[in-house]
Amino acid sequence: MLPCVMDSTKEAAEGAKRASFGLAAIPLALRNLALASIADQLESHKAEILLANDRDIEQAKRHDLAAPLLKRLRYDSAKLDESTMQIRSLIAQEDPIGKVLSRTELDNGLILEKVSCPIGVIGIVFESRPDALVQISTLCLKSGNAVLLKGGSEAKRTNEALVKVINEAIIQTDPCFEGSVHLLSTREEFRSLLALDGLVDLIIPRGSNELVRSIQESTKIPVLGHAAGICHTYVHEDADLALALRVCYDAKIQYPAVCNAMETLLVNQRVARDFLPSMAAEYEKARVELKGDEPTRALIKAEEATEEDWATEYNDLVLSIKVVSSMEEAIEHINRYGSHHTDSIITKSRQAAERFMDLVDSASVMWNCSTRFADGFRYGLGAEVGISTNKTHARGPVGLEGLTIYKWKLRGSGQIVADYVGKGAKEFTHRKLL
Amino acid sequence: MLPCVMDSTKEAAEGAKRASFGLAAIPLALRNLALASIADQLESHKAEILLANDRDIEQAKRHDLAAPLLKRLRYDSAKLDESTMQIRSLIAQEDPIGKVLSRTELDNGLILEKVSCPIGVIGIVFESRPDALVQISTLCLKSGNAVLLKGGSEAKRTNEALVKVINEAIIQTDPCFEGSVHLLSTREEFRSLLALDGLVDLIIPRGSNELVRSIQESTKIPVLGHAAGICHTYVHEDADLALALRVCYDAKIQYPAVCNAMETLLVNQRVARDFLPSMAAEYEKARVELKGDEPTRALIKAEEATEEDWATEYNDLVLSIKVVSSMEEAIEHINRYGSHHTDSIITKSRQAAERFMDLVDSASVMWNCSTRFADGFRYGLGAEVGISTNKTHARGPVGLEGLTIYKWKLRGSGQIVADYVGKGAKEFTHRKLL
Repeated sequence: MLPCVMDSTKEAAEGAKRASFGLAAIPLALRNLALASIADQLESHKAEILLANDRDIEQAKRHDLAAPLLKRLRYDSAKLDESTMQIRSLIAQEDPIGKVLSRTELDNGLILEKVSCPIGVIGIVFESRPDALVQISTLCLKSGNAVLLKGGSEAKRTNEALVKVINEAIIQTDPCFEGSVHLLSTREEFRSLLALDGLVDLIIPRGSNELVRSIQESTKIPVLGHAAGICHTYVHEDADLALALRVCYDAKIQYPAVCNAMETLLVNQRVARDFLPSMAAEYEKARVELKGDEPTRALIKAEEATEEDWATEYNDLVLSIKVVSSMEEAIEHINRYGSHHTDSIITKSRQAAERFMDLVDSASVMWNCSTRFADGFRYGLGAEVGISTNKTHARGPVGLEGLTIYKWKLRGSGQIVADYVGKGAKEFTHRKLL
Repeated sequence: MLPCVMDSTKEAAEGAKRASFGLAAIPLALRNLALASIADQLESHKAEILLANDRDIEQAKRHDLAAPLLKRLRYDSAKLDESTMQIRSLIAQEDPIGKVLSRTELDNGLILEKVSCPIGVIGIVFESRPDALVQISTLCLKSGNAVLLKGGSEAKRTNEALVKVINEAIIQTDPCFEGSVHLLSTREEFRSLLALDGLVDLIIPRGSNELVRSIQESTKIPVLGHAAGICHTYVHEDADLALALRVCYDAKIQYPAVCNAMETLLVNQRVARDFLPSMAAEYEKARVELKGDEPTRALIKAEEATEEDWATEYNDLVLSIKVVSSMEEAIEHINRYGSHHTDSIITKSRQAAERFMDLVDSASVMWNCSTRFADGFRYGLGAEVGISTNKTHARGPVGLEGLTIYKWKLRGSGQIVADYVGKGAKEFTHRKLL
């Protein structure tokens, strides 16, 4: 059963929907002006924002919040500067809406265009990172979307201060922005939001896998994100083993807590004996806990890997290792146990690499490089909305484009369908103009 | 609560999933060969297919199926010829998968490509039209997707005969197609399908609005389609009234039973007196039942339109009419009561038209032409998967492209992320190559 909907959430969502209709026609210059105003006002209200954050931190400490959560909750002067820098770089980005994606002449004086436009109303749910609030709401404004935000209760004061500043900035810029940024305050309001599939067009969760999964389970609104990042590297029989060592080390070690870090290493049996002992020695230096199947444990010291390990995202200095008899076995393992996020092959053979990249059903597939590259900034997308393992709309690292859809515009001069039906009817030209 | 899943459906879906991994790498030539084989075998098995259909028709008559349903159930020689003609035109279409959508150099020897690819497993549900089975399953094969089909029980024998022929044709072409087309036979199997959100990537319903709505209500799998087609034409104050007469007549009369026919006519008060009487006279000749608000009924003979009428898709020779005081009121009415399908403005003013098309939140927005143009064939998309009022993935008439998504392919030469972090780090070039 879907939860019943709170009036306050429904009102906010209806307000956002109304605002979204108008936002679709606000010219880029005005949207950028609003963004610039947000950056300015964040700076001029720095003191009160940091004070609000101090209070959240104090309370979190009283409630014994774990150190990593405390760190993510902290929104200090450096974080605020980073936010304003991100906004200014966002202003510089090209307009994601109003792009003519195709143009076709259907007949003389009857021209069809496919034009990018905002999605409408985006619901953003994020955990304890106030910087995510600023980043995502400005991304929504740049792309002409209205946004409903729900942050963690531990960041309540910071989030309220930030949304107040954002709203003052945009409504001062132009009253048409009224209603386009709204903060939901309680968990009940958030549950209500998930039931409003007639008003909210897309949900983007930014937080733990558990958060994403629980949202996916409880809404009919499309959810853009990924619930897990079980990434693999497969070392093929002809791999350059020095290259494999470097890449596999980076994929596991460089930042193990993130979704694009490697969780399982697959090694072809023909190179296992040459590769695994030296790889294990590198991992040992970095204090990586190794788990392996039997053939692996015959070659290196590792705990026994269970069926569960293949489907586990450790997000930590832990790695499961399996020896496979062929690339086909590696591909089958990845498609079965992986999370369709990011997987890489190490091989000298272009043919093997292309086959691996075609057959592995993942958002990002790589050849001779680290899975850690799967990221919006590294991919050159500018600002990142998130990483999606969906099979529709947007996949992999998602930039501003993921916050847009398109509409069809048909400009005519009195044409009617009856003229194109039956004997002696007019015929469509279907001439591609763009 | 989602229904529990039947073993037979789960097995079929798992088989389709397995098949889909391989389908992604089948070259165009082989996919087209399979399509050609289907067309050939449909022709060579014509007698048994038509016989199966005769039996379905006989049984349907015994069960007193309504005449329009009987008509849609009929799959005769002409329909079969149309199917094979559609398949041959599909073969001629360009490959929707393997298209390089963008190419970026991240650094020297580190090249990122965004490449179109199949979605995976598509579930198709359709009512009593056997031709839809052939059309959609061949569209899925062309785009490298596996497909699970569920037709109406009244077309059971025809559907079974068609799927048998299709499967023989594709598996004879190449065994790798095994498992890629599967017919579900019972309603329970279909309910089970809707619960398999880990295996089925997209559901496309082809049938009544009720069917689409009931599916949208009972699955977490993305559904591509539209539950209603409440389309509007707005006649602006400066409209060419002769042009408006022609276009409004066509939008209502040319084929009233379809989703892109006009259901509500909005008329600016400044032209209502000049326009409505002559328009009503035309509609009267065509036996259109008119409903109107008070200002309308002051000018022409019409029944009283209720609040419910504005939100009704008649799919029949019935039209509701409302006089509005401004374009803004028309836009508000459309965004509030419409189904975000297709809406048109009649005006001489380019500025008004552009504003209308920006502010109306519909899949297709039109200027000086009939809403009936909103259709994949007329838009020049070739084969049509359906018309979507979704705000993500695909919107409006959807062609083969709607059955594809993309993956990111990153080809490197040993690059690791650690080299791009910290002081003296390498920098990304992010050079756009395509």
